[in-house]
Amino acid sequence: MDCIFCKIVAGEIPSSKVYEDEKILGFLDINPAKKGHCLVLPKEHYENIFDVSDDVLSETVAVVKKVALAVQKETASDGVNILQNNNRAAGQLVPHIHFHIIPRFENDEVNFSYRGEKYLEGEIEETRKRIDAIIRMHNAVE
Amino acid sequence: MDCIFCKIVAGEIPSSKVYEDEKILGFLDINPAKKGHCLVLPKEHYENIFDVSDDVLSETVAVVKKVALAVQKETASDGVNILQNNNRAAGQLVPHIHFHIIPRFENDEVNFSYRGEKYLEGEIEETRKRIDAIIRMHNAVE
Repeated sequence: MDCIFCKIVAGEIPSSKVYEDEKILGFLDINPAKKGHCLVLPKEHYENIFDVSDDVLSETVAVVKKVALAVQKETASDGVNILQNNNRAAGQLVPHIHFHIIPRFENDEVNFSYRGEKYLEGEIEETRKRIDAIIRMHNAVE
Repeated sequence: MDCIFCKIVAGEIPSSKVYEDEKILGFLDINPAKKGHCLVLPKEHYENIFDVSDDVLSETVAVVKKVALAVQKETASDGVNILQNNNRAAGQLVPHIHFHIIPRFENDEVNFSYRGEKYLEGEIEETRKRIDAIIRMHNAVE
């Protein structure tokens, strides 16, 4: 397995661990957006939110919450972003599911920016119907 | 309660719903970063990740996964960002916890950018120790 996060989990690559249990690991990002920026991930290898199991996702997010609280406290931040990128086009650099926990401050230089899109007349309802139909189909299969 | 999301939950303000169960609601963001951009939130009012219960957080994120899969399928996106902002400084505009599900495409105009910070010699280990200590303290209290 040539996954850098699997190597961190295995202890083959060092990391600055802030949390570890049987299934989940949390450590400081070595290239932080802001100091205190942490990553939390399941030890088991899943690529992204599309293939992770609900149980593992739930366990991971419970730790995300714990770490977010601690990061906020430690950095005395004004806020925190939780960011989870799926696939390279979304900014996922390591294909092992992970959550970023980023402390934020008033007028800091972290930006989530986009020009934004506008729905044409009737388009939002068409989009809604199609997404709703896909979810209902998946739920019916489960 | 003067919360716009509570009003959407109560049906006092219309929304383009893509998912609804007893506890969780998902709908299209009317000002999308990209078309198909959805929000998922618990119906019960919690302000952010710091005050939501673990159970509700877990249930919400299971729906985030369902909706993310459907958004990816509907938009044929190359990736998806899951973003959850806590407090105004982090970009949270509505103080009722919600997850953004944003479809992403190669070379789109959505950017999460930051200059980034560098830890000084020894600073990452000091930061690690303090965050680790806060988490252990919280765990001991639980």
